[in-house]
Amino acid sequence: MSKHKVFHWPVRVYFQDTDAGGVVYHAAYVNFMERARTEWLRTFGYSNAGLMKELGVVFVVRSITLDYLKPALLDDLLTVTARIKEIGRSRVTLLQSVLRVKEVLTEGEVHLVCVNVQTFKPVSVPEVLRKQWD
Amino acid sequence: MSKHKVFHWPVRVYFQDTDAGGVVYHAAYVNFMERARTEWLRTFGYSNAGLMKELGVVFVVRSITLDYLKPALLDDLLTVTARIKEIGRSRVTLLQSVLRVKEVLTEGEVHLVCVNVQTFKPVSVPEVLRKQWD
Amino acid sequence: MSKHKVFHWPVRVYFQDTDAGGVVYHAAYVNFMERARTEWLRTFGYSNAGLMKELGVVFVVRSITLDYLKPALLDDLLTVTARIKEIGRSRVTLLQSVLRVKEVLTEGEVHLVCVNVQTFKPVSVPEVLRKQWD
Amino acid sequence: MSKHKVFHWPVRVYFQDTDAGGVVYHAAYVNFMERARTEWLRTFGYSNAGLMKELGVVFVVRSITLDYLKPALLDDLLTVTARIKEIGRSRVTLLQSVLRVKEVLTEGEVHLVCVNVQTFKPVSVPEVLRKQWD
Repeated sequence: MSKHKVFHWPVRVYFQDTDAGGVVYHAAYVNFMERARTEWLRTFGYSNAGLMKELGVVFVVRSITLDYLKPALLDDLLTVTARIKEIGRSRVTLLQSVLRVKEVLTEGEVHLVCVNVQTFKPVSVPEVLRKQWD
Repeated sequence: MSKHKVFHWPVRVYFQDTDAGGVVYHAAYVNFMERARTEWLRTFGYSNAGLMKELGVVFVVRSITLDYLKPALLDDLLTVTARIKEIGRSRVTLLQSVLRVKEVLTEGEVHLVCVNVQTFKPVSVPEVLRKQWD
Repeated sequence: MSKHKVFHWPVRVYFQDTDAGGVVYHAAYVNFMERARTEWLRTFGYSNAGLMKELGVVFVVRSITLDYLKPALLDDLLTVTARIKEIGRSRVTLLQSVLRVKEVLTEGEVHLVCVNVQTFKPVSVPEVLRKQWD
Repeated sequence: MSKHKVFHWPVRVYFQDTDAGGVVYHAAYVNFMERARTEWLRTFGYSNAGLMKELGVVFVVRSITLDYLKPALLDDLLTVTARIKEIGRSRVTLLQSVLRVKEVLTEGEVHLVCVNVQTFKPVSVPEVLRKQWD
Protein backbone atom coordinates (compact mmCIF):
# COMPACT_ATOMS: atom_id res chain seq x y z
CA MET A 1 0.00 0.00 0.00
CA SER A 2 1.35 3.39 -0.95
CA LYS A 3 2.35 5.87 1.71
CA HIS A 4 1.20 8.68 -0.56
CA LYS A 5 -2.24 10.10 -0.09
CA VAL A 6 -4.87 10.12 -2.81
CA PHE A 7 -6.12 13.56 -3.85
CA HIS A 8 -9.69 13.87 -5.22
CA TRP A 9 -11.05 16.58 -7.51
CA PRO A 10 -14.62 16.84 -8.87
CA VAL A 11 -15.18 17.42 -12.60
CA ARG A 12 -18.57 17.88 -14.24
CA VAL A 13 -19.03 16.77 -17.86
CA TYR A 14 -20.38 19.45 -20.23
CA PHE A 15 -21.19 19.34 -23.98
CA GLN A 16 -17.70 20.77 -24.60
CA ASP A 17 -16.19 17.53 -23.24
CA THR A 18 -18.27 15.15 -25.34
CA ASP A 19 -18.25 14.05 -28.98
CA ALA A 20 -20.69 12.83 -31.62
CA GLY A 21 -20.27 9.28 -30.29
CA GLY A 22 -22.38 10.48 -27.35
CA VAL A 23 -19.60 10.01 -24.79
CA VAL A 24 -16.69 12.04 -23.39
CA TYR A 25 -14.03 12.59 -26.08
CA HIS A 26 -10.84 10.68 -25.27
CA ALA A 27 -8.59 13.75 -25.14
CA ALA A 28 -10.92 15.44 -22.63
CA TYR A 29 -9.68 13.05 -19.91
CA VAL A 30 -6.20 14.48 -20.42
CA ASN A 31 -7.65 17.91 -19.62
CA PHE A 32 -9.52 16.56 -16.60
CA MET A 33 -6.29 15.07 -15.26
CA GLU A 34 -4.39 18.35 -15.72
CA ARG A 35 -7.04 20.10 -13.64
CA ALA A 36 -6.71 17.56 -10.83
CA ARG A 37 -2.87 17.68 -10.90
CA THR A 38 -2.94 21.47 -10.70
CA GLU A 39 -5.29 21.42 -7.71
CA TRP A 40 -3.21 18.66 -6.09
CA LEU A 41 -0.11 20.86 -6.49
CA ARG A 42 -1.99 23.77 -4.96
CA THR A 43 -2.52 21.75 -1.76
CA PHE A 44 1.27 21.90 -1.31
CA GLY A 45 1.26 25.68 -1.54
CA TYR A 46 2.06 26.28 -5.21
CA SER A 47 0.18 27.33 -8.32
CA ASN A 48 1.79 26.80 -11.72
CA ALA A 49 2.27 30.55 -12.12
CA GLY A 50 3.73 30.70 -8.61
CA LEU A 51 6.22 27.90 -9.34
CA MET A 52 7.35 29.70 -12.49
CA LYS A 53 7.68 33.14 -10.92
CA GLU A 54 9.02 32.25 -7.47
CA LEU A 55 11.12 29.17 -8.18
CA GLY A 56 11.78 29.48 -11.93
CA VAL A 57 10.59 25.93 -12.63
CA VAL A 58 7.62 24.24 -14.23
CA PHE A 59 6.47 20.61 -14.35
CA VAL A 60 6.07 19.37 -17.92
CA VAL A 61 4.48 16.12 -19.04
CA ARG A 62 7.19 13.73 -20.26
CA SER A 63 4.85 10.80 -20.97
CA ILE A 64 1.30 9.75 -20.34
CA THR A 65 -0.52 6.43 -20.53
CA LEU A 66 -4.30 6.22 -20.42
CA ASP A 67 -6.54 3.15 -20.23
CA TYR A 68 -10.13 3.79 -21.17
CA LEU A 69 -12.28 1.23 -19.35
CA LYS A 70 -15.78 2.70 -19.53
CA PRO A 71 -17.13 5.89 -21.10
CA ALA A 72 -18.18 8.95 -19.11
CA LEU A 73 -21.38 10.65 -20.23
CA LEU A 74 -22.85 14.14 -20.52
CA ASP A 75 -23.71 15.63 -17.10
CA ASP A 76 -21.74 13.00 -15.16
CA LEU A 77 -20.14 14.26 -11.99
CA LEU A 78 -16.73 12.62 -12.04
CA THR A 79 -13.97 12.37 -9.48
CA VAL A 80 -10.43 12.71 -10.77
CA THR A 81 -7.65 11.44 -8.50
CA ALA A 82 -3.92 12.06 -8.27
CA ARG A 83 -1.39 10.17 -6.17
CA ILE A 84 2.41 10.01 -6.24
CA LYS A 85 3.81 6.67 -7.38
CA GLU A 86 7.51 7.56 -7.42
CA ILE A 87 9.83 10.54 -7.09
CA GLY A 88 13.26 10.86 -8.68
CA ARG A 89 15.64 13.79 -8.75
CA SER A 90 13.70 15.77 -11.35
CA ARG A 91 10.92 13.31 -12.20
CA VAL A 92 7.61 12.66 -10.48
CA THR A 93 5.33 9.81 -11.49
CA LEU A 94 1.64 10.21 -10.69
CA LEU A 95 -1.18 7.71 -10.84
CA GLN A 96 -4.45 9.28 -11.84
CA SER A 97 -7.91 7.90 -12.34
CA VAL A 98 -11.34 9.12 -13.35
CA LEU A 99 -14.26 7.68 -11.40
CA ARG A 100 -18.05 7.91 -11.48
CA VAL A 101 -18.93 7.30 -7.84
CA LYS A 102 -16.95 4.07 -7.14
CA GLU A 103 -16.62 2.95 -10.75
CA VAL A 104 -13.23 3.47 -12.41
CA LEU A 105 -13.71 4.81 -15.95
CA THR A 106 -10.15 5.73 -16.91
CA GLU A 107 -6.75 5.00 -15.40
CA GLY A 108 -3.66 7.02 -16.12
CA GLU A 109 0.03 7.22 -15.34
CA VAL A 110 1.74 10.54 -15.89
CA HIS A 111 5.48 11.22 -15.78
CA LEU A 112 6.26 14.81 -14.98
CA VAL A 113 9.69 16.40 -15.22
CA CYS A 114 10.65 19.53 -13.33
CA VAL A 115 12.40 21.86 -15.78
CA ASN A 116 13.94 25.29 -15.69
CA VAL A 117 11.40 27.71 -17.10
CA GLN A 118 14.00 29.40 -19.37
CA THR A 119 16.06 26.49 -20.65
CA PHE A 120 13.47 23.69 -20.38
CA LYS A 121 16.37 21.56 -18.99
CA PRO A 122 15.58 19.14 -16.11
CA VAL A 123 16.33 20.47 -12.63
CA SER A 124 15.85 19.02 -9.15
CA VAL A 125 12.34 19.05 -7.72
CA PRO A 126 12.31 22.08 -5.35
CA GLU A 127 13.10 21.08 -1.77
CA VAL A 128 9.96 22.85 -0.53
CA LEU A 129 7.90 20.31 -2.51
CA ARG A 130 10.16 17.29 -2.06
CA LYS A 131 10.01 17.46 1.72
CA GLN A 132 6.22 17.31 1.54
CA TRP A 133 6.24 14.47 -1.03
CA ASP A 134 8.81 12.08 0.42
CA MET B 1 -32.87 47.08 -13.30
CA SER B 2 -33.64 43.55 -14.37
CA LYS B 3 -36.04 41.41 -12.42
CA HIS B 4 -33.92 38.38 -13.26
CA LYS B 5 -31.38 37.15 -10.78
CA VAL B 6 -27.70 36.87 -11.60
CA PHE B 7 -26.22 33.38 -11.31
CA HIS B 8 -22.50 33.04 -10.43
CA TRP B 9 -20.22 30.11 -11.22
CA PRO B 10 -16.50 29.81 -10.36
CA VAL B 11 -14.01 28.76 -13.04
CA ARG B 12 -10.29 28.22 -12.48
CA VAL B 13 -7.87 28.86 -15.37
CA TYR B 14 -5.55 25.96 -16.24
CA PHE B 15 -2.82 25.61 -18.90
CA GLN B 16 -5.46 23.97 -21.14
CA ASP B 17 -7.33 27.30 -21.27
CA THR B 18 -4.33 29.47 -22.18
CA ASP B 19 -2.32 30.08 -25.34
CA ALA B 20 1.21 31.05 -26.33
CA GLY B 21 0.28 34.73 -25.93
CA GLY B 22 0.37 34.00 -22.19
CA VAL B 23 -3.34 34.68 -21.67
CA VAL B 24 -6.61 32.73 -21.85
CA TYR B 25 -7.38 31.73 -25.45
CA HIS B 26 -10.41 33.61 -26.78
CA ALA B 27 -12.48 30.50 -27.51
CA ALA B 28 -11.98 29.26 -23.93
CA TYR B 29 -14.41 31.91 -22.67
CA VAL B 30 -17.10 30.29 -24.82
CA ASN B 31 -16.46 27.07 -22.92
CA PHE B 32 -16.50 28.87 -19.56
CA MET B 33 -19.87 30.39 -20.44
CA GLU B 34 -21.33 27.01 -21.43
CA ARG B 35 -20.33 25.64 -18.02
CA ALA B 36 -22.05 28.53 -16.23
CA ARG B 37 -25.21 28.23 -18.37
CA THR B 38 -25.42 24.53 -17.67
CA GLU B 39 -25.09 25.05 -13.92
CA TRP B 40 -27.60 27.92 -14.10
CA LEU B 41 -30.07 25.55 -15.83
CA ARG B 42 -29.44 22.96 -13.14
CA THR B 43 -30.68 25.39 -10.48
CA PHE B 44 -34.11 25.14 -12.17
CA GLY B 45 -34.11 21.35 -11.85
CA TYR B 46 -32.79 20.28 -15.26
CA SER B 47 -29.56 18.90 -16.66
CA ASN B 48 -29.01 18.93 -20.43
CA ALA B 49 -29.34 15.15 -20.54
CA GLY B 50 -32.50 15.39 -18.41
CA LEU B 51 -34.07 17.95 -20.75
CA MET B 52 -33.35 15.72 -23.72
CA LYS B 53 -34.61 12.49 -22.16
CA GLU B 54 -37.59 13.78 -20.17
CA LEU B 55 -38.85 16.65 -22.31
CA GLY B 56 -37.35 15.82 -25.72
CA VAL B 57 -35.83 19.29 -26.12
CA VAL B 58 -32.42 20.88 -26.03
CA PHE B 59 -31.26 24.51 -25.97
CA VAL B 60 -28.92 25.30 -28.85
CA VAL B 61 -26.84 28.43 -29.32
CA ARG B 62 -28.33 30.54 -32.15
CA SER B 63 -25.89 33.42 -31.82
CA ILE B 64 -23.22 34.69 -29.49
CA THR B 65 -21.47 38.03 -29.08
CA LEU B 66 -18.37 38.41 -26.95
CA ASP B 67 -16.48 41.55 -25.96
CA TYR B 68 -12.99 40.95 -24.68
CA LEU B 69 -12.09 43.80 -22.33
CA LYS B 70 -9.13 42.46 -20.37
CA PRO B 71 -7.27 39.15 -20.52
CA ALA B 72 -7.60 36.42 -17.90
CA LEU B 73 -4.38 34.71 -16.84
CA LEU B 74 -3.13 31.28 -15.82
CA ASP B 75 -4.34 30.27 -12.33
CA ASP B 76 -6.94 33.06 -12.15
CA LEU B 77 -10.07 32.17 -10.25
CA LEU B 78 -12.83 33.65 -12.38
CA THR B 79 -16.53 34.12 -11.81
CA VAL B 80 -18.80 33.48 -14.77
CA THR B 81 -22.31 34.93 -14.59
CA ALA B 82 -25.58 34.20 -16.36
CA ARG B 83 -28.76 36.24 -16.28
CA ILE B 84 -31.89 36.23 -18.44
CA LYS B 85 -32.30 39.33 -20.60
CA GLU B 86 -35.41 38.29 -22.53
CA ILE B 87 -37.64 35.30 -23.14
CA GLY B 88 -39.63 34.65 -26.29
CA ARG B 89 -41.72 31.62 -27.28
CA SER B 90 -38.75 29.40 -28.10
CA ARG B 91 -35.87 31.83 -27.59
CA VAL B 92 -34.03 32.85 -24.43
CA THR B 93 -31.45 35.63 -24.40
CA LEU B 94 -28.82 35.49 -21.67
CA LEU B 95 -26.28 38.06 -20.57
CA GLN B 96 -23.07 36.48 -19.37
CA SER B 97 -19.85 37.94 -18.09
CA VAL B 98 -16.48 36.73 -16.86
CA LEU B 99 -15.04 38.53 -13.85
CA ARG B 100 -11.86 38.45 -11.81
CA VAL B 101 -13.08 39.56 -8.39
CA LYS B 102 -15.01 42.76 -9.34
CA GLU B 103 -13.24 43.41 -12.65
CA VAL B 104 -15.20 42.52 -15.81
CA LEU B 105 -12.91 40.76 -18.28
CA THR B 106 -15.39 39.57 -20.90
CA GLU B 107 -19.03 40.36 -21.62
CA GLY B 108 -21.30 38.15 -23.66
CA GLU B 109 -24.80 37.90 -24.99
CA VAL B 110 -26.05 34.47 -25.96
CA HIS B 111 -29.26 33.67 -27.83
CA LEU B 112 -30.50 30.17 -27.13
CA VAL B 113 -33.29 28.44 -29.00
CA CYS B 114 -35.25 25.55 -27.56
CA VAL B 115 -35.45 22.85 -30.24
CA ASN B 116 -36.93 19.39 -30.57
CA VAL B 117 -34.12 16.91 -30.02
CA GLN B 118 -35.12 14.84 -33.08
CA THR B 119 -36.01 17.46 -35.67
CA PHE B 120 -33.89 20.40 -34.39
CA LYS B 121 -37.00 22.56 -35.10
CA PRO B 122 -37.83 25.36 -32.62
CA VAL B 123 -40.42 24.48 -29.98
CA SER B 124 -41.87 26.39 -27.02
CA VAL B 125 -39.73 26.68 -23.93
CA PRO B 126 -41.12 23.99 -21.56
CA GLU B 127 -43.71 25.41 -19.15
CA VAL B 128 -41.84 23.95 -16.18
CA LEU B 129 -38.93 26.29 -17.01
CA ARG B 130 -40.95 29.27 -18.28
CA LYS B 131 -42.89 29.60 -15.04
CA GLN B 132 -39.62 29.85 -13.13
CA TRP B 133 -38.12 32.33 -15.63
CA ASP B 134 -40.94 34.83 -16.16
CA MET C 1 -19.40 45.21 -53.31
CA SER C 2 -16.24 45.05 -51.25
CA LYS C 3 -12.88 45.73 -52.82
CA HIS C 4 -11.34 43.19 -50.46
CA LYS C 5 -10.78 39.66 -51.66
CA VAL C 6 -12.32 36.66 -49.97
CA PHE C 7 -9.84 34.10 -48.63
CA HIS C 8 -10.91 30.43 -48.42
CA TRP C 9 -9.52 27.74 -46.14
CA PRO C 10 -10.64 24.09 -45.94
CA VAL C 11 -11.42 22.53 -42.54
CA ARG C 12 -12.40 18.92 -41.99
CA VAL C 13 -14.68 18.05 -39.04
CA TYR C 14 -13.33 15.36 -36.68
CA PHE C 15 -14.81 13.81 -33.49
CA GLN C 16 -12.78 16.38 -31.50
CA ASP C 17 -14.93 19.16 -33.01
CA THR C 18 -18.31 17.59 -32.27
CA ASP C 19 -20.45 17.16 -29.16
CA ALA C 20 -23.03 14.76 -27.78
CA GLY C 21 -25.75 16.63 -29.68
CA GLY C 22 -24.28 14.97 -32.78
CA VAL C 23 -23.17 18.24 -34.37
CA VAL C 24 -20.12 20.53 -34.28
CA TYR C 25 -19.75 22.15 -30.84
CA HIS C 26 -20.42 25.91 -31.02
CA ALA C 27 -16.98 26.94 -29.73
CA ALA C 28 -15.27 24.82 -32.40
CA TYR C 29 -16.26 27.37 -35.07
CA VAL C 30 -14.21 29.95 -33.18
CA ASN C 31 -11.21 27.64 -33.59
CA PHE C 32 -11.98 27.08 -37.27
CA MET C 33 -12.08 30.84 -37.82
CA GLU C 34 -8.74 31.35 -36.06
CA ARG C 35 -7.17 28.80 -38.42
CA ALA C 36 -8.52 30.63 -41.48
CA ARG C 37 -7.44 34.06 -40.18
CA THR C 38 -3.93 32.76 -39.53
CA GLU C 39 -3.65 31.31 -43.03
CA TRP C 40 -5.13 34.51 -44.50
CA LEU C 41 -2.42 36.50 -42.66
CA ARG C 42 0.22 34.13 -44.01
CA THR C 43 -0.76 35.08 -47.59
CA PHE C 44 0.51 38.59 -46.77
CA GLY C 45 3.89 37.23 -45.71
CA TYR C 46 3.49 36.93 -41.93
CA SER C 47 2.98 34.15 -39.42
CA ASN C 48 1.85 35.03 -35.88
CA ALA C 49 5.28 34.09 -34.53
CA GLY C 50 6.90 36.19 -37.27
CA LEU C 51 4.77 39.24 -36.45
CA MET C 52 5.72 38.94 -32.78
CA LYS C 53 9.44 38.42 -33.35
CA GLU C 54 10.06 40.73 -36.31
CA LEU C 55 7.57 43.55 -35.70
CA GLY C 56 6.86 43.18 -31.95
CA VAL C 57 3.09 43.15 -32.48
CA VAL C 58 0.26 40.66 -32.32
CA PHE C 59 -3.39 40.81 -33.40
CA VAL C 60 -5.75 40.06 -30.53
CA VAL C 61 -9.48 39.46 -30.73
CA ARG C 62 -11.35 42.44 -29.29
CA SER C 63 -14.84 41.16 -30.04
CA ILE C 64 -16.54 38.42 -31.98
CA THR C 65 -20.11 37.84 -33.14
CA LEU C 66 -21.26 34.49 -34.46
CA ASP C 67 -24.58 33.53 -36.03
CA TYR C 68 -25.23 29.82 -36.15
CA LEU C 69 -27.57 29.15 -39.09
CA LYS C 70 -27.19 25.40 -39.68
CA PRO C 71 -25.13 22.74 -37.93
CA ALA C 72 -22.00 21.20 -39.39
CA LEU C 73 -21.62 17.44 -38.99
CA LEU C 74 -18.92 14.86 -38.39
CA ASP C 75 -16.71 14.33 -41.48
CA ASP C 76 -17.99 17.45 -43.24
CA LEU C 77 -15.42 19.22 -45.37
CA LEU C 78 -16.04 22.87 -44.62
CA THR C 79 -14.74 26.07 -46.17
CA VAL C 80 -13.91 28.89 -43.81
CA THR C 81 -13.63 32.36 -45.31
CA ALA C 82 -12.02 35.61 -44.22
CA ARG C 83 -12.40 39.05 -45.78
CA ILE C 84 -11.58 42.55 -44.55
CA LYS C 85 -14.62 44.71 -43.83
CA GLU C 86 -12.85 47.77 -42.42
CA ILE C 87 -9.42 48.93 -41.32
CA GLY C 88 -8.74 51.60 -38.70
CA ARG C 89 -5.45 52.76 -37.22
CA SER C 90 -4.96 49.73 -34.99
CA ARG C 91 -8.20 47.84 -35.65
CA VAL C 92 -9.13 45.43 -38.43
CA THR C 93 -12.65 44.08 -38.85
CA LEU C 94 -13.00 40.77 -40.65
CA LEU C 95 -16.07 39.02 -41.97
CA GLN C 96 -15.79 35.26 -41.73
CA SER C 97 -18.13 32.46 -42.66
CA VAL C 98 -18.23 28.69 -42.53
CA LEU C 99 -19.69 26.95 -45.56
CA ARG C 100 -20.51 23.42 -46.65
CA VAL C 101 -20.17 23.62 -50.41
CA LYS C 102 -22.36 26.69 -51.16
CA GLU C 103 -24.44 26.55 -47.98
CA VAL C 104 -23.59 29.11 -45.28
CA LEU C 105 -23.59 27.40 -41.86
CA THR C 106 -22.13 30.12 -39.64
CA GLU C 107 -21.43 33.82 -40.13
CA GLY C 108 -19.01 35.78 -38.04
CA GLU C 109 -17.61 39.26 -37.55
CA VAL C 110 -14.31 39.56 -35.76
CA HIS C 111 -12.68 42.76 -34.52
CA LEU C 112 -8.94 42.45 -34.20
CA VAL C 113 -6.67 44.97 -32.55
CA CYS C 114 -2.97 45.22 -33.28
CA VAL C 115 -1.16 45.46 -29.94
CA ASN C 116 2.43 45.73 -28.75
CA VAL C 117 3.53 42.26 -27.70
CA GLN C 118 5.04 43.54 -24.42
CA THR C 119 2.52 46.12 -23.24
CA PHE C 120 -0.63 44.78 -24.94
CA LYS C 121 -1.39 48.45 -25.80
CA PRO C 122 -2.90 49.21 -29.25
CA VAL C 123 -0.41 50.24 -31.92
CA SER C 124 -0.76 51.08 -35.61
CA VAL C 125 -1.19 48.20 -38.03
CA PRO C 126 2.30 47.68 -39.52
CA GLU C 127 2.72 49.55 -42.81
CA VAL C 128 3.89 46.37 -44.54
CA LEU C 129 0.41 44.91 -43.94
CA ARG C 130 -1.61 48.09 -44.32
CA LYS C 131 -0.30 48.77 -47.81
CA GLN C 132 -1.48 45.30 -48.87
CA TRP C 133 -4.87 45.72 -47.14
CA ASP C 134 -5.96 49.20 -48.21
CA MET D 1 10.81 -3.86 -40.81
CA SER D 2 7.05 -3.56 -40.84
CA LYS D 3 5.04 -4.60 -43.85
CA HIS D 4 2.57 -1.84 -43.08
CA LYS D 5 2.89 1.47 -44.84
CA VAL D 6 3.36 4.73 -42.99
CA PHE D 7 0.66 7.33 -43.57
CA HIS D 8 1.58 11.04 -43.29
CA TRP D 9 -0.73 13.94 -42.51
CA PRO D 10 0.24 17.64 -42.21
CA VAL D 11 -0.90 19.65 -39.18
CA ARG D 12 -0.25 23.35 -38.66
CA VAL D 13 0.07 24.68 -35.09
CA TYR D 14 -2.25 27.60 -34.22
CA PHE D 15 -2.69 29.60 -30.99
CA GLN D 16 -5.57 27.24 -30.12
CA ASP D 17 -3.07 24.37 -29.83
CA THR D 18 -0.59 26.16 -27.56
CA ASP D 19 -0.50 27.07 -23.88
CA ALA D 20 0.99 29.74 -21.63
CA GLY D 21 4.23 27.73 -21.46
CA GLY D 22 4.77 28.91 -25.05
CA VAL D 23 4.59 25.41 -26.55
CA VAL D 24 1.90 23.05 -27.85
CA TYR D 25 -0.36 21.87 -24.99
CA HIS D 26 0.15 18.16 -24.29
CA ALA D 27 -3.47 17.16 -24.98
CA ALA D 28 -3.34 18.85 -28.41
CA TYR D 29 -1.16 16.02 -29.73
CA VAL D 30 -4.01 13.63 -28.96
CA ASN D 31 -6.19 15.75 -31.24
CA PHE D 32 -3.51 15.86 -33.94
CA MET D 33 -3.28 12.06 -33.85
CA GLU D 34 -7.06 11.66 -34.14
CA ARG D 35 -6.97 13.80 -37.29
CA ALA D 36 -4.23 11.67 -38.84
CA ARG D 37 -5.99 8.38 -37.91
CA THR D 38 -9.22 9.63 -39.47
CA GLU D 39 -7.48 10.59 -42.69
CA TRP D 40 -5.57 7.29 -42.67
CA LEU D 41 -8.92 5.46 -42.40
CA ARG D 42 -10.29 7.53 -45.27
CA THR D 43 -7.55 6.17 -47.56
CA PHE D 44 -9.20 2.74 -47.14
CA GLY D 45 -12.55 4.10 -48.29
CA TYR D 46 -14.27 4.89 -44.98
CA SER D 47 -15.12 7.99 -42.98
CA ASN D 48 -16.14 7.63 -39.34
CA ALA D 49 -19.70 8.60 -40.20
CA GLY D 50 -19.65 6.11 -43.08
CA LEU D 51 -18.43 3.27 -40.84
CA MET D 52 -21.22 4.00 -38.38
CA LYS D 53 -24.00 4.31 -40.96
CA GLU D 54 -23.00 1.60 -43.43
CA LEU D 55 -21.38 -0.99 -41.20
CA GLY D 56 -22.80 -0.12 -37.78
CA VAL D 57 -19.38 -0.01 -36.15
CA VAL D 58 -16.99 2.59 -34.79
CA PHE D 59 -13.36 2.44 -33.65
CA VAL D 60 -12.93 3.64 -30.08
CA VAL D 61 -9.67 4.35 -28.29
CA ARG D 62 -9.02 1.65 -25.67
CA SER D 63 -5.66 2.96 -24.55
CA ILE D 64 -3.06 5.48 -25.58
CA THR D 65 0.57 6.05 -24.66
CA LEU D 66 2.40 9.22 -25.56
CA ASP D 67 6.07 10.11 -25.16
CA TYR D 68 6.84 13.79 -25.38
CA LEU D 69 10.42 14.17 -26.61
CA LYS D 70 10.57 17.78 -27.79
CA PRO D 71 8.00 20.56 -27.82
CA ALA D 72 6.24 21.79 -30.96
CA LEU D 73 5.85 25.55 -31.31
CA LEU D 74 3.37 28.09 -32.65
CA ASP D 75 3.24 28.10 -36.48
CA ASP D 76 5.16 24.85 -36.81
CA LEU D 77 4.11 22.73 -39.76
CA LEU D 78 4.07 19.21 -38.33
CA THR D 79 3.72 15.81 -39.90
CA VAL D 80 1.61 13.27 -38.03
CA THR D 81 2.07 9.64 -38.98
CA ALA D 82 0.00 6.49 -38.53
CA ARG D 83 1.04 2.90 -39.16
CA ILE D 84 -0.46 -0.44 -38.15
CA LYS D 85 1.58 -2.36 -35.60
CA GLU D 86 -0.78 -5.28 -35.02
CA ILE D 87 -4.30 -6.43 -35.84
CA GLY D 88 -6.41 -8.73 -33.70
CA ARG D 89 -10.02 -9.82 -34.13
CA SER D 90 -11.53 -6.55 -32.95
CA ARG D 91 -8.39 -4.65 -31.97
CA VAL D 92 -5.99 -2.58 -34.06
CA THR D 93 -2.78 -1.17 -32.65
CA LEU D 94 -1.35 1.89 -34.37
CA LEU D 95 2.01 3.57 -34.00
CA GLN D 96 1.80 7.32 -34.44
CA SER D 97 4.36 10.06 -34.30
CA VAL D 98 4.52 13.81 -34.64
CA LEU D 99 7.48 15.21 -36.56
CA ARG D 100 8.89 18.60 -37.47
CA VAL D 101 10.66 17.88 -40.74
CA LYS D 102 12.78 14.83 -39.73
CA GLU D 103 12.80 15.46 -36.00
CA VAL D 104 10.48 13.25 -33.90
CA LEU D 105 8.68 15.39 -31.30
CA THR D 106 6.15 12.93 -29.93
CA GLU D 107 5.68 9.19 -30.23
CA GLY D 108 2.43 7.40 -29.56
CA GLU D 109 0.87 3.97 -29.49
CA VAL D 110 -2.90 3.78 -29.78
CA HIS D 111 -5.06 0.71 -29.23
CA LEU D 112 -8.35 0.92 -31.06
CA VAL D 113 -11.26 -1.45 -30.62
CA CYS D 114 -13.96 -1.94 -33.22
CA VAL D 115 -17.32 -1.80 -31.42
CA ASN D 116 -20.97 -2.04 -32.37
CA VAL D 117 -22.32 1.48 -32.57
CA GLN D 118 -25.42 0.59 -30.50
CA THR D 119 -24.07 -1.71 -27.81
CA PHE D 120 -20.45 -0.47 -27.68
CA LYS D 121 -19.51 -4.22 -27.50
CA PRO D 122 -16.39 -5.34 -29.41
CA VAL D 123 -17.04 -6.84 -32.85
CA SER D 124 -14.76 -8.12 -35.59
CA VAL D 125 -12.95 -5.59 -37.72
CA PRO D 126 -15.03 -5.40 -40.95
CA GLU D 127 -13.65 -7.69 -43.65
CA VAL D 128 -13.56 -4.80 -46.13
CA LEU D 129 -10.93 -3.14 -43.93
CA ARG D 130 -9.14 -6.28 -42.72
CA LYS D 131 -8.35 -7.43 -46.21
CA GLN D 132 -6.64 -4.10 -46.90
CA TRP D 133 -4.78 -4.15 -43.57
CA ASP D 134 -3.40 -7.69 -43.40
